[in-house]
Amino acid sequence: MTTEARPPFPTSARTVFFVSDGTGITAETFGHAVLTQFEMRFRQIRLPFIDDDAKAFEAVRRINDVFRQDGQRPIVFSTLVKPHLSNLIRQANGLHMDLIQTFVAPLEQELGVKSTHTIGRSHNIVDSEEYKNRIEAINFSLAHDDGQSHKNLAAADVILVGVSRSGKTPTSLYLAMQYGIKAANYPLIPDDFERGKLPSALPEFRQKIFGLTITPERLSEIRNERRAGSKYASIENCRYEINEAETMMRREGIRWLSSTTKSIEEIATTILQEIKPDRREY
Amino acid sequence: MTTEARPPFPTSARTVFFVSDGTGITAETFGHAVLTQFEMRFRQIRLPFIDDDAKAFEAVRRINDVFRQDGQRPIVFSTLVKPHLSNLIRQANGLHMDLIQTFVAPLEQELGVKSTHTIGRSHNIVDSEEYKNRIEAINFSLAHDDGQSHKNLAAADVILVGVSRSGKTPTSLYLAMQYGIKAANYPLIPDDFERGKLPSALPEFRQKIFGLTITPERLSEIRNERRAGSKYASIENCRYEINEAETMMRREGIRWLSSTTKSIEEIATTILQEIKPDRREY
Repeated sequence: MTTEARPPFPTSARTVFFVSDGTGITAETFGHAVLTQFEMRFRQIRLPFIDDDAKAFEAVRRINDVFRQDGQRPIVFSTLVKPHLSNLIRQANGLHMDLIQTFVAPLEQELGVKSTHTIGRSHNIVDSEEYKNRIEAINFSLAHDDGQSHKNLAAADVILVGVSRSGKTPTSLYLAMQYGIKAANYPLIPDDFERGKLPSALPEFRQKIFGLTITPERLSEIRNERRAGSKYASIENCRYEINEAETMMRREGIRWLSSTTKSIEEIATTILQEIKPDRREY
Repeated sequence: MTTEARPPFPTSARTVFFVSDGTGITAETFGHAVLTQFEMRFRQIRLPFIDDDAKAFEAVRRINDVFRQDGQRPIVFSTLVKPHLSNLIRQANGLHMDLIQTFVAPLEQELGVKSTHTIGRSHNIVDSEEYKNRIEAINFSLAHDDGQSHKNLAAADVILVGVSRSGKTPTSLYLAMQYGIKAANYPLIPDDFERGKLPSALPEFRQKIFGLTITPERLSEIRNERRAGSKYASIENCRYEINEAETMMRREGIRWLSSTTKSIEEIATTILQEIKPDRREY
């Protein structure tokens, strides 16, 4: 949300539309993955909830307006389940990347059945078991953030440990939100190092514990953003804490990974590969 | 995570692979959107971080193993940026849905430049401004969950209000995690209704406030899952609170939407359309 701080936007930039009958999150996530392959900047416009003819015509009008303004055709990533709406959008002057139609036809042939053409992800999603699990996991992860609660740890799918600001909280929330994983997290603090023991609620759940570590330099940088010049953020203190935490995790036989150069998505995916079988159904 | 509770998995189910040089989240999100168009169940296997030849060969071996076991070829959704790795995977016996190669070639032609074939989303992501904004937004939203803090509300992008369990917390976290939006949230409680006023910290930020409401029946259902048989969860009390909250929001001129049948993704996207312009750059 700090658009203002960026350099002026090149007027020649291409415009990209994300058009969807739902939230457009799939189209946008996918579009970003493709567009980051190009060293250019793009202006992006999100058109969610395009689920009837009137909205589709309005979307076509907006795409054509941009075509006239830019003098070059916009790129249109779309996830429209109904072929009828998809065909309407294709009438706009753009380079169309139709994610559903491109892949549904070969799948229909392979599977020997017709697709249902329902409006996909949002269809009854709120009543599904998977959705309820996700909401329950978010509530669990929030209630068990930062060692707040020892209650019901038996229900946790994973318990993250690590020093303050090693990435435990965003990773826990991401695991809950994206995968429906109940993730508790516990800070490892100087008191634990002096006692030479894990926080007392944890040893019985050792098989669910996963550690995060980070280089002292990166940790100091992150802590200084919050509390500049504090002892807490000093490189000496960060070296001490990391050394103690890694010694403790090694002694306790806890699996761990370094969050230094990893995004929360990468940390979460790595943990998922460790703690649960990769086969699931849906 | 309640796989056990489900009906037995049909042995004839197709297997789906998600193969990626990164987390595989894009491949999986996209694959789900496509597969939900088919009224079938699929067994899924996630193969993330396939970023060198050895891992690609191992992935090919696993896909071919499944082909032999199932007696039908698996469906393979892949996001492999390097054409070389993509070509290796295509040697496996499967129906290949290559998300990058399918769309990168027409884009290269349209844009008149070659793609960089870098490993996309994770490339230096941790140092990017956008990533830092997201982490900052998550921390902000957590610190401002459930009216915990009045500090720094001027920095909020949006302030959600609504009765307890109307969906404020998961929506706030989703806005932060997915879009880097700083979302505070405040409960509307019986004290506020008796005073006939919004919580005192809020009126000066009225233009950033967005309300969530929900039907009393659905609210009672959700509250009963947590506190069965309580006055708090009773339909009479839910009717009272919702009526008061809607009256207050109407009087204060606060925009609101009903979360009753909407997923957090749909609520978040709708709010985003309301509070910020749809043009952004990246």
